[in-house]
Amino acid sequence: MSNDALPISRFPVPELADMPADIREKILTVQEKAGFVPNVFLVLAHRPDEFRAFFAYHDALMLKETGNLTKADREMIVTATSAKNNCLYCVVAHGALLRIYAKNPLTADQIAVNHHKADITPRQKAMLDYAIKVCLDSQSITDADHAALRLHGFDDEDIWDIAAITAFFGLSNRMANVTSMRPNAEFYLMGRVPRG
Amino acid sequence: MSNDALPISRFPVPELADMPADIREKILTVQEKAGFVPNVFLVLAHRPDEFRAFFAYHDALMLKETGNLTKADREMIVTATSAKNNCLYCVVAHGALLRIYAKNPLTADQIAVNHHKADITPRQKAMLDYAIKVCLDSQSITDADHAALRLHGFDDEDIWDIAAITAFFGLSNRMANVTSMRPNAEFYLMGRVPRG
Amino acid sequence: MSNDALPISRFPVPELADMPADIREKILTVQEKAGFVPNVFLVLAHRPDEFRAFFAYHDALMLKETGNLTKADREMIVTATSAKNNCLYCVVAHGALLRIYAKNPLTADQIAVNHHKADITPRQKAMLDYAIKVCLDSQSITDADHAALRLHGFDDEDIWDIAAITAFFGLSNRMANVTSMRPNAEFYLMGRVPRG
Amino acid sequence: MSNDALPISRFPVPELADMPADIREKILTVQEKAGFVPNVFLVLAHRPDEFRAFFAYHDALMLKETGNLTKADREMIVTATSAKNNCLYCVVAHGALLRIYAKNPLTADQIAVNHHKADITPRQKAMLDYAIKVCLDSQSITDADHAALRLHGFDDEDIWDIAAITAFFGLSNRMANVTSMRPNAEFYLMGRVPRG
Amino acid sequence: MSNDALPISRFPVPELADMPADIREKILTVQEKAGFVPNVFLVLAHRPDEFRAFFAYHDALMLKETGNLTKADREMIVTATSAKNNCLYCVVAHGALLRIYAKNPLTADQIAVNHHKADITPRQKAMLDYAIKVCLDSQSITDADHAALRLHGFDDEDIWDIAAITAFFGLSNRMANVTSMRPNAEFYLMGRVPRG
Amino acid sequence: MSNDALPISRFPVPELADMPADIREKILTVQEKAGFVPNVFLVLAHRPDEFRAFFAYHDALMLKETGNLTKADREMIVTATSAKNNCLYCVVAHGALLRIYAKNPLTADQIAVNHHKADITPRQKAMLDYAIKVCLDSQSITDADHAALRLHGFDDEDIWDIAAITAFFGLSNRMANVTSMRPNAEFYLMGRVPRG
Repeated sequence: MSNDALPISRFPVPELADMPADIREKILTVQEKAGFVPNVFLVLAHRPDEFRAFFAYHDALMLKETGNLTKADREMIVTATSAKNNCLYCVVAHGALLRIYAKNPLTADQIAVNHHKADITPRQKAMLDYAIKVCLDSQSITDADHAALRLHGFDDEDIWDIAAITAFFGLSNRMANVTSMRPNAEFYLMGRVPRG
Repeated sequence: MSNDALPISRFPVPELADMPADIREKILTVQEKAGFVPNVFLVLAHRPDEFRAFFAYHDALMLKETGNLTKADREMIVTATSAKNNCLYCVVAHGALLRIYAKNPLTADQIAVNHHKADITPRQKAMLDYAIKVCLDSQSITDADHAALRLHGFDDEDIWDIAAITAFFGLSNRMANVTSMRPNAEFYLMGRVPRG
Repeated sequence: MSNDALPISRFPVPELADMPADIREKILTVQEKAGFVPNVFLVLAHRPDEFRAFFAYHDALMLKETGNLTKADREMIVTATSAKNNCLYCVVAHGALLRIYAKNPLTADQIAVNHHKADITPRQKAMLDYAIKVCLDSQSITDADHAALRLHGFDDEDIWDIAAITAFFGLSNRMANVTSMRPNAEFYLMGRVPRG
Repeated sequence: MSNDALPISRFPVPELADMPADIREKILTVQEKAGFVPNVFLVLAHRPDEFRAFFAYHDALMLKETGNLTKADREMIVTATSAKNNCLYCVVAHGALLRIYAKNPLTADQIAVNHHKADITPRQKAMLDYAIKVCLDSQSITDADHAALRLHGFDDEDIWDIAAITAFFGLSNRMANVTSMRPNAEFYLMGRVPRG
Repeated sequence: MSNDALPISRFPVPELADMPADIREKILTVQEKAGFVPNVFLVLAHRPDEFRAFFAYHDALMLKETGNLTKADREMIVTATSAKNNCLYCVVAHGALLRIYAKNPLTADQIAVNHHKADITPRQKAMLDYAIKVCLDSQSITDADHAALRLHGFDDEDIWDIAAITAFFGLSNRMANVTSMRPNAEFYLMGRVPRG
Repeated sequence: MSNDALPISRFPVPELADMPADIREKILTVQEKAGFVPNVFLVLAHRPDEFRAFFAYHDALMLKETGNLTKADREMIVTATSAKNNCLYCVVAHGALLRIYAKNPLTADQIAVNHHKADITPRQKAMLDYAIKVCLDSQSITDADHAALRLHGFDDEDIWDIAAITAFFGLSNRMANVTSMRPNAEFYLMGRVPRG
């Protein structure tokens, strides 16, 4: 059986033709840019209003032009916390983005397994320590956690960004785990081999 | 010291006058309806784009007119899972809404402490068992969990709703814990005493 | 169905008339003072010898006139640790007493959900940190934990009190969870509204 | 340094001569019977009222003549749950009593390390499974747990006994861990060698 | 900085020339076969006697010609349990072998993140459920766990194999985590792209 | 029923006569020295190649003549970590060796229950803290853990020894739990009574 025949969701997945125009439009734009449609777009299109809110939230955090987090930093947060939530879709898809933005074919696997062993800076380790605490034990966050981040040059807006990205992908991880959202096969190899 | 003098967020909270018009409008509408502005509106207004996505997502799940979850069912899910995340704001604010929708002054405290001991139906207990699994261990959700819910009359759309509400408030809980979002004093007493 | 019709214990509950005289006497005294009989008295009366030892222990710790713990401090310890043990009876009943002794309608709910977010002093937070460690991980208590409490002005007798209250209510929590001890409806509202 | 020189408590231990008469009397009786004074009597004598309540509770549960739990069953519960709480005093002291009552020099060590591997009956394993659940996760006890015990011939009074012994020694374990209560050297060898 | 400059161990790594002849021989053989020397050989060569025992054990389990576990099954067990132990070296190196033996570029990443979502058979899922229980909670293994495996066609020798592979790589994972053993860059891409 | 009639393994145990000569030889030597054959030799003889690797590894770590760990230190590590893995065989057998090497009848039981309460040196407590971290959470080992050990006079080779002993007995614990390896009755009393 070809992997392509496997379901991408436990729930119904609408045909592109049956989607509201704005959603179809967004999906076609993504497809043009990426060369394929990441399954999260198809799976969440089952619920148009939630789809719109989800991607509005996503874009507000991940496409934000201000602040001191690089795109690689943000994907690192997503990869590390999605691994703690054992979310296959997000580790595979955002690991791919992390390899591309970090221009490093090793970082994503390192961070998914054990960020203490990754080839990243002490500043990035502090960022991931905090993100993982927000992910797993947000009730225990205190001022001391924020003070530790400031020592690494993060300001309050950066701290909000780290926390909000973690919180948003915690939502995403749970939806992916519940829907059994299947990562596109394309993601697994992205960013691993130099583009010739 | 009056409690009113205590900060409602670790982060800056904008003045109503300084907010974008659509956000100010939404807040004034809520104030008119509730008699006060729940602090979550003020705290999240620090980030207008995230504010808009957050409430669009919230409304898509909590104001939805279709499906078999009552408003009390939904607030029950929020209260039970927010308690597992030790989120003071959500337990207090949504516990208040639960008391009102369930027309029962005891249910919210029961569910916040131990849903096994609450005066709710076996169907509601199954719903909360599932929500708590999505909250704490979504990686282990299998078809068997969904089959168990169907035995209680939940259909697939209801299951998505339970999971999505849990996932969304997992985001909310983490933002509230990180911002130290303070519940308005008004919530603590709402729904506890009969309106004369 | 009225809540009053719901059972208060998984085990037999004796009639007042069938209890030994000293136990009936104690219960009538409590009833006179409180205006109702807290269910813990009725549920534990099933075992008169254990009842006597339980309340002797309780009174030795909670009615003690010496030491530096206020009555509110003690009820705070009970509320915080009972929440960790997910004991509905104790969180509801002792949360009520905490509201009364602390003369604050918000403290009990705050402490039951997340004591880090409560409107209490750093000394009280240190006291609750220690109590929660005794509750959840007493094997790891070392001299360093006691030194930390002394920095907040607690002496050795106070430390014994904090530990003993936690240990005693750990017993109480387990009995309440096993018996499914039902909190009286009266407790839920006590201390929430100013006495006119 | 002789072990006898090591402190038996982090807290002051009164001299026999300074204790209230009833407590001194109880201790002398124990000494006569056992040949030595178990340190729990000396350590808790620091607080006479708590001492009296503690031993009244202890005797009500452990010296009870009715019900279907043998003395070995009761000491087994104490040993198994005290091991989960990592309480050195209770594992050593009650392991000694278990060896004596079970007339088996191996059972106590087996149960302290892993009750699944112990030379005990399926009925005793069910009893310990339940006791360990009361010890570690009492909030999740449901009617199904009690039904499982009834299948092994335990009645409701036996179930109360198992739970109450577990709950009481949970208190005892926490006090022993907090006071650093030192087991008497005599206990380690008791019941290991046949009396000639 | 080239990744190749990064240390492969927290401990001294001997030069090939300084190793005992049998160890050097083994390493040169591996190098010839694989095209590079996996770092585990270099890191463990610091302790020749342990090196010899380690690889004798490894080979007894992983090169064994009898039984019903395929080479892919065995690497699956290593990958799944090493992920639970957050061992970067073993997830990366054995994930590579798994891709090769399973002739599937996706399986290793799926199993490392969440074996419930992997494209494997129910028999393989049962095998991994058991291996993960041996890895994380071996004290609770009972006859029922073995009966469940027999239903999937595993015999007792297969069960020993699953358990022994898990136990051996538990040792390996701990040594890799303690030494900060660095996976060779070659492993990350192995088995991901078809050999042209 | 005599305990001697109880099975020592869930798997087949070969007769001495049927074992390969080198294994039989090793077992007879042990028997001569100890006066009995520890069951681990018989249980593992089911797999001759694994038996040879297991004891080669064991001897490399436990019979090593160099380094700063005494024989008592090594058995302490085994006893403490085997207790965390709830391995009956290793706690009982290595607890016996610990009593003998430490010439102290109390240490083994103390360490098996709670090493914080044992009559050992601060250096030994630091050693056990580290071993337990390797046993339960090796992913979180950082340079800081090693620095803490060096403050107590351990050098890098000692640190490797502590880690390797822990890792090796983690393997052993899992095999003993899976095979239900029964400790010989002789171990329980060894080292408890002075040899006359």
